[in-house]
Amino acid sequence: MYTVRVTVRLKPSLLDSAGRTVRGSLVAIGFEEVQEARIGKVIELKVDSVEPERLKAMCSKLLANPVTEDFEIEVVE
Amino acid sequence: MYTVRVTVRLKPSLLDSAGRTVRGSLVAIGFEEVQEARIGKVIELKVDSVEPERLKAMCSKLLANPVTEDFEIEVVE
Repeated sequence: MYTVRVTVRLKPSLLDSAGRTVRGSLVAIGFEEVQEARIGKVIELKVDSVEPERLKAMCSKLLANPVTEDFEIEVVE
Repeated sequence: MYTVRVTVRLKPSLLDSAGRTVRGSLVAIGFEEVQEARIGKVIELKVDSVEPERLKAMCSKLLANPVTEDFEIEVVE
């Protein structure tokens, strides 16, 4: 059994309104050093086998929206 | 300016119903090798200064719910 970590992030060119709100809240409670926050997802999968092409297909078909998001796949162990 | 990555995950003892749904959907579209999926958040911060105690406080006060979630802080660059 392998652990695969998929990180899905909004494309850098897109405005992350949730991240902007988080940044504003951090500053409001005293963390003025925060200049930007962007929020993504991390999906940790336990899989029986690791085939890079199949992992990419999982991301582009279901885990990420390829129009608005980038994804990164790491085999952790 | 530093980049800090905060990963927030549901505590391992808690049922991740969204993750379970994702796992079911992956299996349904043919990815039978997926045994489990768990979903977390990744928050990428740009900060002027890195003080570990302040980063932990950001997590426990706002970015994570310490009752139900664990967090991990990495200074990326």
